[in-house]
Amino acid sequence: MEIKDLMIIGGGPAGLSAAINARRRNKEIVLIGKEKISSKLWLAPHVENYLGFGNITGQELAEKMREHAAGQGTEMAHDEIQNLWTEEDFFVAMGREAQYKAKAVILAVGVAQQTAIDGEDRFIGKGVSYCATCDGMFYRGKRVAMVSYIPEGEEEARFLAEVCEHVYYLPQYALRQVIDPRIEVIKGKPLEIMGDGLVQGLRIKDNELEVSGVFIERPSVPMDRLLPDLEIIEGAVKVDREMRTNLPGVFAAGDCIGRPWQIGKAVGEGQIAALSAVHYLETR
Amino acid sequence: MEIKDLMIIGGGPAGLSAAINARRRNKEIVLIGKEKISSKLWLAPHVENYLGFGNITGQELAEKMREHAAGQGTEMAHDEIQNLWTEEDFFVAMGREAQYKAKAVILAVGVAQQTAIDGEDRFIGKGVSYCATCDGMFYRGKRVAMVSYIPEGEEEARFLAEVCEHVYYLPQYALRQVIDPRIEVIKGKPLEIMGDGLVQGLRIKDNELEVSGVFIERPSVPMDRLLPDLEIIEGAVKVDREMRTNLPGVFAAGDCIGRPWQIGKAVGEGQIAALSAVHYLETR
Repeated sequence: MEIKDLMIIGGGPAGLSAAINARRRNKEIVLIGKEKISSKLWLAPHVENYLGFGNITGQELAEKMREHAAGQGTEMAHDEIQNLWTEEDFFVAMGREAQYKAKAVILAVGVAQQTAIDGEDRFIGKGVSYCATCDGMFYRGKRVAMVSYIPEGEEEARFLAEVCEHVYYLPQYALRQVIDPRIEVIKGKPLEIMGDGLVQGLRIKDNELEVSGVFIERPSVPMDRLLPDLEIIEGAVKVDREMRTNLPGVFAAGDCIGRPWQIGKAVGEGQIAALSAVHYLETR
Repeated sequence: MEIKDLMIIGGGPAGLSAAINARRRNKEIVLIGKEKISSKLWLAPHVENYLGFGNITGQELAEKMREHAAGQGTEMAHDEIQNLWTEEDFFVAMGREAQYKAKAVILAVGVAQQTAIDGEDRFIGKGVSYCATCDGMFYRGKRVAMVSYIPEGEEEARFLAEVCEHVYYLPQYALRQVIDPRIEVIKGKPLEIMGDGLVQGLRIKDNELEVSGVFIERPSVPMDRLLPDLEIIEGAVKVDREMRTNLPGVFAAGDCIGRPWQIGKAVGEGQIAALSAVHYLETR
């Protein structure tokens, strides 16, 4: 696969602003984001504080932003990155759909507003997984639970139902309907992932589900799981004024670098990150 | 005069973004800027990298921005601040037209792209002045020079011609016509302000003008002249990630805090500065 100049992970205001600014500097880029850019923006009934648009719905603004980026020649991939690493002198990102390669990276993944489940960290790779498509086959014929903060988890759960003995689905959002007769929907918050070396159960309020796998679906993979050496301070990616992270060639912008979680801030930071990445590409 | 919650000095993208965000938080504000917001933006034939507007002229974008801010109830004053100081627990700004008072200040004055004239610093208050209206009378019957980087200097020069013995006018922009029979227009760059304790002359290429006053008109008064204790690093106001300067209650955003000099960056920083100022007002 072609190695791009720049990959931008995240298709909200920060990522799109980075895209138009990198394109203006003639860089070949790929932007990887969800189909509906920034669900937070998409769902906003009114946006009144992004300068130049007096009163606009979130959806209208999101569409204008996406059209703008597309008009500048941004290649957009609808995918979710599960893993990111360096290879020789470029970065490789593994999505659910494809692999992406680029010489520099801008992280604009937004903020994961959920905290970890007790025991989650301890069992990563030992029964905790963030990707049913990637790891589902390891649980063939076994009992699993999926904790999902987003409706996208439903499709993943259906896939698990095809291969696993039993699938519990714990939606952490307002589920509208029974999603599949093979899937048992459980209400309540996941309190603790339990086990002895490997996952053996998931504790809910008055109940413990016996499972050997717990799949977790969040709006985005936590940053420090994506890039283990990335410096994070109080949940936010640490950057300097030029939006450089502690890793050469990796920049960050928008909600993932800290408050305030606002559109204008994200757009400004995306612009700075793009110009810094361009500078990096031209001087490395 | 009423003491506002917040005064914003500068009516470009950073100042206007600060204004809409402070208004959204219900603060009483006054924004002090030139009639045409941000001449740099106003003159741009196309703007293609402010997210959401695919291709727009600078003038159209400037008008949309100003309408947005006005629609949110921003009080706008067309004035230029000459001086700024604290009094009890509020700030006082002296403009050419009026005085303004507020409990917090956001500096969004853009960047002065001209460097100081040799000798300028040495003679401030000893013959160098930035305000003809304020200081003109001290030069009654004397010979003065005005170095102006903006057409607005012409009116100031006409005022000087009424009181001074002779006025040299050195336009550092393309002057379109003779501005006044009483004013002698001189071409060329000012090279050095000379004197012994007090100003005695202004050196041009092959010439020295004998004057006892040199008036300098720039798009904005240099920040460190406006607020002498303000920390400046390499020509830019020093701020932290929350856009706080070293002075409590004084915030800054946009081109005046450093590169890149871009609209998106300015809008984002104006938003952050406003939210920080609101926090300051609510917790002081």
